[in-house]
Amino acid sequence: MRLSRYFLPLLKENPSEAQIVSHRLMLRAGMIRQQAAGIYSWLPLGLRVLANIEAIVARELDKAGCIRLLLPTLQPAELWKESGRYDAFGKEMLRIKDRAERDLLYSPTCEEMIVDNFRAAIRSYKSLPLHLYQINWKFRDEVRPRFGVMRGREFYMKDGYSFHATLDDAKREYDKMYDVYHAIFKALGLTAIAVNANTGAIGGSMSHEFQVVAETGESALYYDATFDDIRSGKINMSSADMRKLYAAADELHIPEECPVPKERLRETRGIEVGQIFLLGSKYTDAMNIQVIGANGEAIVPEMGTYGIGVSRLVGAIIEASHDDNGIIWPESVAPFKVGLINLRVGDAKCDALCETLYDTLESKGVSVLYDDTEDRAGAKFASMDLIGLPWQLTVGPKGAERGVVELKNRKFGEKQELSVEATLAQLIK
Amino acid sequence: MRLSRYFLPLLKENPSEAQIVSHRLMLRAGMIRQQAAGIYSWLPLGLRVLANIEAIVARELDKAGCIRLLLPTLQPAELWKESGRYDAFGKEMLRIKDRAERDLLYSPTCEEMIVDNFRAAIRSYKSLPLHLYQINWKFRDEVRPRFGVMRGREFYMKDGYSFHATLDDAKREYDKMYDVYHAIFKALGLTAIAVNANTGAIGGSMSHEFQVVAETGESALYYDATFDDIRSGKINMSSADMRKLYAAADELHIPEECPVPKERLRETRGIEVGQIFLLGSKYTDAMNIQVIGANGEAIVPEMGTYGIGVSRLVGAIIEASHDDNGIIWPESVAPFKVGLINLRVGDAKCDALCETLYDTLESKGVSVLYDDTEDRAGAKFASMDLIGLPWQLTVGPKGAERGVVELKNRKFGEKQELSVEATLAQLIK
Repeated sequence: MRLSRYFLPLLKENPSEAQIVSHRLMLRAGMIRQQAAGIYSWLPLGLRVLANIEAIVARELDKAGCIRLLLPTLQPAELWKESGRYDAFGKEMLRIKDRAERDLLYSPTCEEMIVDNFRAAIRSYKSLPLHLYQINWKFRDEVRPRFGVMRGREFYMKDGYSFHATLDDAKREYDKMYDVYHAIFKALGLTAIAVNANTGAIGGSMSHEFQVVAETGESALYYDATFDDIRSGKINMSSADMRKLYAAADELHIPEECPVPKERLRETRGIEVGQIFLLGSKYTDAMNIQVIGANGEAIVPEMGTYGIGVSRLVGAIIEASHDDNGIIWPESVAPFKVGLINLRVGDAKCDALCETLYDTLESKGVSVLYDDTEDRAGAKFASMDLIGLPWQLTVGPKGAERGVVELKNRKFGEKQELSVEATLAQLIK
Repeated sequence: MRLSRYFLPLLKENPSEAQIVSHRLMLRAGMIRQQAAGIYSWLPLGLRVLANIEAIVARELDKAGCIRLLLPTLQPAELWKESGRYDAFGKEMLRIKDRAERDLLYSPTCEEMIVDNFRAAIRSYKSLPLHLYQINWKFRDEVRPRFGVMRGREFYMKDGYSFHATLDDAKREYDKMYDVYHAIFKALGLTAIAVNANTGAIGGSMSHEFQVVAETGESALYYDATFDDIRSGKINMSSADMRKLYAAADELHIPEECPVPKERLRETRGIEVGQIFLLGSKYTDAMNIQVIGANGEAIVPEMGTYGIGVSRLVGAIIEASHDDNGIIWPESVAPFKVGLINLRVGDAKCDALCETLYDTLESKGVSVLYDDTEDRAGAKFASMDLIGLPWQLTVGPKGAERGVVELKNRKFGEKQELSVEATLAQLIK
């Protein structure tokens, strides 16, 4: 992508409404724009990150045998009356009347609708287990939307629902998703800490929240110091072993009962990026769902439900990965892999070398944002640092003369002078 | 994908509520399910087609230099009051009050919001031309939603908006998009006929609708018989040449003024799948948008707007491509490329051969729906014909013994007995 033809409205000043670093950086980097309280446009750079996260989440779920579908954003109220949650959900539910005065609502979550699709199609235990998921926009009418996409009203969520013949089967899927979630967050460049959680308005008998450590998080977080060794890459641990380590959020941490010695207990804050629930038959009971069991008897399917805040993750990744100069994207979610800076647009050699690098990288599937504008060098470097692409590739007149470019790693800051061939070899892997 | 683990609720009977063939086939093939009038769940098979269409539309637009972003589904009423359309839009606009009694609406189209994003970012003619687009859910509260996804209330739309320094520039982009749209529909396996159209509630000075010929279409359609030669593949014609051919819809066809001799004039019906508008300064004037021109003067940007009905296209493609047995997907949008039928599940040789075919094809990026269920052969063939995958690959005990399979082309019906190697060579291209 050529920057001169792109739509990347960077802000020079820190926007006053942004209280946390991810919100500030997303506004400054031209990723989002607020259209109403808690409702955002995703500008081109932001949308690329959102789409990358979505693709990784979907890829890992597909690999785990989950089946993707898509439920509408608007739902009829009847379904929610059936489960008893229409009145219980409160003001967070956005209620709507259509032109015929029928009651609709903007989906805040989809247990009812997925159960409705299940009952229309599934008759026998032979179709179980079945794990359906979708990724779509939800709306929750928060009293105080804030922190940008971290606590928006219209937000992008992955919500999965599994159906099983027995509670043991549901429990097995729960354990599997516990591992899948760790794999997803790892693929996004994050270390998530799973903590026991309350089940709240969703319900069920067991729940874990996946938290990303960040001072600006909404929950207090207590955990075994071993997690810090995992986060910093000092040690590697399977999610099964991680599950044995102590971690708890907020009121579920009871100091007197905590098994971790004081010097190994870390106390910080966390951002919830996912949550899984062992639901049991709460919804299948309420909505009278039965299928035929192995011996011809009627059984009530047991369920699990599994959420990931896809749009929130964009903010959470920035909270976990930035410095004073801007965002530092993990390569897997970066909007472009390479930022190509032409220090002297109009100089024949600089232009030609940049064109060659741009065309070659793009043709090999390496995404490039090419700064072909006439801005000053200092402004170009600052913008590239701000938007946080993993690699910065700088072409200046002296280097172009010698066929040499400068390659900088955004995360570690190290710069190398390299030949064109060596640069391409490093970036095309 | 193994059918035994998939979610594909096929219907045996023709659903009584479906009046047109695409609606009937989408319900029967387990692609969609109605949740409220004009509001649908996209079941896994349907979602795969929708996603394929979306990807093709986006690919062609990106190639043409359009920049993708994403606007929220809910918008503040203020923007629409600014343009004067809030009151004018009527009951098709779904109006919503949030918990703080602020007026929101579910986006039916996004001219206002895109102009709002433009004015926040663009100051100079140097940033022009700029063509932004999104693909997102829209809502129009139709009095009588019907024909499934062809006339739904919640529907998936590509909407693009371009900004220019002069009306000539806007006209040039309009002509370019005329060609791009033809390329998009061709890539989807369709021949669209562009007809002059009224500009309606969107406005502007010129508009073309892109129509797919179908008896069930909502518009009367009149065109030069040459289009039929193009549709049937008899001749190839550039979109520039196609534009010179006569075509008109509904009241824009005036028999006395029609330049086509009677014997060359075709009269049928069409489904509108896209529309482009040369807007001029309707919205930029109404919303007071100015940027600095080349000589330092203030100029009002000229606009174009360009829509494609992405969810409607799923239905339109089926209307254009089906037979008595079911859907016939063009390869570019097919939910899976190959349907693999195991005629004797449990037979060691059949199972082993199917597994080999399945693994080999999937590993080469060829998507396969593998019918590994214990249904009768007849039911399996009928289901595969119904869901319309381009290739059916059948493995039976006799063939498996000899290392031979049957490959059927869904469109032409021809069957070949082939060795495993020849089959793989044909499918992996």
